[in-house]
Amino acid sequence: MLSIKDENKQKKKVALIGCGLIGQSWAICFLSAGFDVSLFDPVKGVTKKAKEKIKAKLSDLQNYGLLKNKNISDYLDRIHLTQDLLHAVEGSIYVQESGPEDLDIKKELTKRIDAATPDNIPIASSTSGIPTSLYASDIPGQYRCLVAHPIHPPHLIQAVEIVPAPFTNETITQAVKKIITAIGKEPLALKKEIPGFVVNRLQGALLNEAFNLVKEGISSAEDIDKAISEGLGLRWSFMGPFQTIHLNAPEGIAGYVKRYEKMYRDIFNKTDIEWSSVVNLGLEEELIKLYPLSEREKQERERDNKLTKLTLHKMKL
Amino acid sequence: MLSIKDENKQKKKVALIGCGLIGQSWAICFLSAGFDVSLFDPVKGVTKKAKEKIKAKLSDLQNYGLLKNKNISDYLDRIHLTQDLLHAVEGSIYVQESGPEDLDIKKELTKRIDAATPDNIPIASSTSGIPTSLYASDIPGQYRCLVAHPIHPPHLIQAVEIVPAPFTNETITQAVKKIITAIGKEPLALKKEIPGFVVNRLQGALLNEAFNLVKEGISSAEDIDKAISEGLGLRWSFMGPFQTIHLNAPEGIAGYVKRYEKMYRDIFNKTDIEWSSVVNLGLEEELIKLYPLSEREKQERERDNKLTKLTLHKMKL
Repeated sequence: MLSIKDENKQKKKVALIGCGLIGQSWAICFLSAGFDVSLFDPVKGVTKKAKEKIKAKLSDLQNYGLLKNKNISDYLDRIHLTQDLLHAVEGSIYVQESGPEDLDIKKELTKRIDAATPDNIPIASSTSGIPTSLYASDIPGQYRCLVAHPIHPPHLIQAVEIVPAPFTNETITQAVKKIITAIGKEPLALKKEIPGFVVNRLQGALLNEAFNLVKEGISSAEDIDKAISEGLGLRWSFMGPFQTIHLNAPEGIAGYVKRYEKMYRDIFNKTDIEWSSVVNLGLEEELIKLYPLSEREKQERERDNKLTKLTLHKMKL
Repeated sequence: MLSIKDENKQKKKVALIGCGLIGQSWAICFLSAGFDVSLFDPVKGVTKKAKEKIKAKLSDLQNYGLLKNKNISDYLDRIHLTQDLLHAVEGSIYVQESGPEDLDIKKELTKRIDAATPDNIPIASSTSGIPTSLYASDIPGQYRCLVAHPIHPPHLIQAVEIVPAPFTNETITQAVKKIITAIGKEPLALKKEIPGFVVNRLQGALLNEAFNLVKEGISSAEDIDKAISEGLGLRWSFMGPFQTIHLNAPEGIAGYVKRYEKMYRDIFNKTDIEWSSVVNLGLEEELIKLYPLSEREKQERERDNKLTKLTLHKMKL
């Protein structure tokens, strides 16, 4: 069974299946955290090229002082290239598959990985939207399959969505969260599967509106981009959308929704916007626990300080 | 007629109508840029309290080295408090109204401001979603009315949406853009009115999906917030959603849409997602002009460098 208890003493290896941009970036995450990494690709020469790209990215990180070890070779020496799946998973405590975003390919690949990998070793997929139920329901090892979806480029972005299928063993899910935490990432726990998960549903909703605004001739793509990069995106780089609106009304999220729910209904001409019921059924309670109304002034000052520091940071760029 | 040509020599005054959080923040923007500011509120004592809050925020900015002048009194001395609308607009080259977000109040207030303000002086509203057509179509000075919508808190966020009504004079719109630029803000030009404008339509679309995810029991609000603050929001703090996806496929936005349009259609179970037609009707052309495919590697490296620097910045916080 998976053990990451002695994570700083024991030699650990993970298998990365597929070594495109995402696989390369995963390699950097695991190498930085002290893991050995098996890099697998069925096509000859692909892993070698991937290793070169990993080297270049490690150099960039080193230039910013973000690598612990002085010598890049300390990292590169822990990369093991292989065209043999059995060889890749051998001795690995974790398998991360980053193959093409195609249901049939993912089904076949997961089946092969499952057959090759010793029992109880988690098999996580980097898929950005295909639930595990759709690609792993027919294989013996479905209990150790789940999604660990990073955001591009993974070695520079913390969030990783952890999405188990109904058939995924809870012990496996917890073990994967531990590994993701151990490599310094921030696991986001999804309680159940939904197509697109959280990240791409949020991104997709915003993108769809952005496309709509261009289609309607409201604004240029450049100005829509600025509405985010010089606008909404500033706060969002350190606080999420719920915390943002919770801080945008003196009474917190309940006050915000009371004030603006009708506006949003009118904007989108949608009568099915029913945010207040969500607020009442636990959302307000959660947000007030996280950000008590009694500490409001402090929270506002903190937001403004972070915004000011971000402004200074961007001025320096 | 409005003149901001000699902006560094000539004494300039603007009138800020309403001095809640948004009005206070506008005051800081204009004071920092060297303007005199009339602060109007009909209720006794309100402007005095607002001035105190402006003072506190100026102190914060000073602590971060973001104020040009050493003495805060240099700024405070240029604030003129008044309960008299006529007095507020007298000698002002620009009027910014930040009253309550209520159509009837906005109609009445704009009518009064129009009656009090000399011809050809722009009257901009901070409304976050009410088009000028709805509140200014019945007044004589409709030609100089439009929206200049900032994002909270305006003195720390660059983007300001400029939304003229069909009846707004183009010279006025251009003059307002110049003023907004002169105070160091980034005007976003909307070609036509739409309820919610760009900013709140983008925010509303994302929020609606976030509420939906909580309602469906997919994830906690805290983890949804992290999907942004430790995920999508990082890139969005320096590049917008279009540039982001343009960089997420080797062939640019056309490649991204080709690859992911079906996924988003399936995610939202919406057949009316037709991004490819928008791509073909000018969006790809605009993005390729802004971010040529031939400079792709440079753009990717720039994104990664900015992300790395942001990571370092956040580590310091």
